[in-house]
Amino acid sequence: MKALLFQEVGKFPTLQTVEKPKPSQPGEVVVKLKAAALNRRDYFITQGLYPGIRTPMILGSDGAGLHNDRLVVINPALYWGHDLRVQQKSFEVLGMPTYGTMAEEIVISSDRVHYAPEHLTAEEAAAIPLAGLTAYRALFTRGKLKEGQKLLITGIGGGVSSIALQFANVVGAKIAVTSGSDQKLDQAKEYGAGLGVNYTDEEWAAKLSAFGEFDLILDSAGGDGFSQLVKLAKPGGTISLYGGTRGKISNLSPQVIFWKQLDIKGSTMGSDKDFADMLSFVDAHKIRPVIDRIYSMEAVDEAFESMAVSRQYGKIVIRISE
Amino acid sequence: MKALLFQEVGKFPTLQTVEKPKPSQPGEVVVKLKAAALNRRDYFITQGLYPGIRTPMILGSDGAGLHNDRLVVINPALYWGHDLRVQQKSFEVLGMPTYGTMAEEIVISSDRVHYAPEHLTAEEAAAIPLAGLTAYRALFTRGKLKEGQKLLITGIGGGVSSIALQFANVVGAKIAVTSGSDQKLDQAKEYGAGLGVNYTDEEWAAKLSAFGEFDLILDSAGGDGFSQLVKLAKPGGTISLYGGTRGKISNLSPQVIFWKQLDIKGSTMGSDKDFADMLSFVDAHKIRPVIDRIYSMEAVDEAFESMAVSRQYGKIVIRISE
Repeated sequence: MKALLFQEVGKFPTLQTVEKPKPSQPGEVVVKLKAAALNRRDYFITQGLYPGIRTPMILGSDGAGLHNDRLVVINPALYWGHDLRVQQKSFEVLGMPTYGTMAEEIVISSDRVHYAPEHLTAEEAAAIPLAGLTAYRALFTRGKLKEGQKLLITGIGGGVSSIALQFANVVGAKIAVTSGSDQKLDQAKEYGAGLGVNYTDEEWAAKLSAFGEFDLILDSAGGDGFSQLVKLAKPGGTISLYGGTRGKISNLSPQVIFWKQLDIKGSTMGSDKDFADMLSFVDAHKIRPVIDRIYSMEAVDEAFESMAVSRQYGKIVIRISE
Repeated sequence: MKALLFQEVGKFPTLQTVEKPKPSQPGEVVVKLKAAALNRRDYFITQGLYPGIRTPMILGSDGAGLHNDRLVVINPALYWGHDLRVQQKSFEVLGMPTYGTMAEEIVISSDRVHYAPEHLTAEEAAAIPLAGLTAYRALFTRGKLKEGQKLLITGIGGGVSSIALQFANVVGAKIAVTSGSDQKLDQAKEYGAGLGVNYTDEEWAAKLSAFGEFDLILDSAGGDGFSQLVKLAKPGGTISLYGGTRGKISNLSPQVIFWKQLDIKGSTMGSDKDFADMLSFVDAHKIRPVIDRIYSMEAVDEAFESMAVSRQYGKIVIRISE
């Protein structure tokens, strides 16, 4: 079969012919993939910025394809365990060290396979799993977002933040977003953002503050800006922190945190329940995830380049078969 | 009446004769105080380290005395409001700008007045309100501490941390504590701490780590050490942050917070429900708060000096009448 094979740190995967995988454990099934999607994690792995890298490897956490002649999506959160609060030690994300979705076929435990909501194309279905799961848990399971609440999403445009905006919009949140790109801010407004602020603007915090105090802030940056986020939070509010692209947090005031009785909640991926709840939510609200662009398997380099420079708004999808 | 009057920033209160206060609002009552207790807040105010300082002022958040011939304690959390999650904007702590407990009489709204648990002396009852309320909320309302869980309390010896140790011990937590004083660590062991680690020891984090992963960490320091606390927390664990004596938090890893799905919860004082629940808890478990020393009103300087150098283990109490 054709597969995008990652063979060496520092290089992107290349299109190769490899042996078809075969089920070897009870409960494993074959999914014939129609589309996969990229996540920042895939790019980080190619750059060696991930623990426990093994080669050769088929990357890819997101995939949709056919199983028993129906379109299915794959839950990329492997071995979460039974504690809804936190994943167990053996937790893995599909696509390293377990072979992922950037191939014509994948062998996977049947409990990871869910029928796709019927309103979705294969490419849309592939755009949902990792980002949708992460956004759903950070917004609802951890963040307890409710109708009418004010929400700030930092770094709009990425897979998680763009689907989080869609999720929050359908529940009736009042949403502000930030980005370093005015174009992405404009795009976010089409998906329900009431305010977009460019974080390169020196007045960014003041402009967000004028929008009101935030019941919930979704942040994947950390870094120096985080100390401003606690000031923007409403007393009794929550910050869901699901990434750290800006590195370590500094200059953070304990006084602001305790006087406002804030909750800072770490969130990553999600439990099996989160995944099932997220799919039901996507189905109920007929959400179509934003796709930045669909690439062919031959154009894998371009897909990874786009992720490398964070040019995209929404998901970068790779079409595997028609 | 006699009162300890705070008249000038930089100086401790002095014993003065002042006019007796009289009820002026519906629902106000007079409590004839038998004992008051000091909090770090009182000391900070004398040093000008508090917003909105007014003089002359009767300081004191903690008091116990007679009302209708029964021993009562005063809830020092004024105007919390109806939201259990967070205090409203008009919230105040008794003792600035509202006259406090370091006097022979206080006029206070009757809804702040609770009968003292019957096993307590007046001095013990006075040692409970602010510290007990803060500890109860941080441990239980916010921290959800349960029997058998591992708990770390940093900076043992202060009013809040020492009563938190007593509270946690009676519910069957496994408790480690830190302090810069070996003597305080020894004292903490008498009250149920299973491990005491001196934070001036370079190996402090490793020694705590050997005790196991902490379900809950109670911290009032913040500062540079906080980044180590997230590493000591159990996946799915909580840090209740109720103070910031070491200043701003730096070098904090977002990755550790989100991968472990940690909760960092700010907590200060407590709601009226927290206060009532705390008193019931003290009554049910017949807890006697640790008193470091009881001072006369004439020895107020010594009492404040002791707080200034953090010499105490437990509460510093001022006897007002026999």
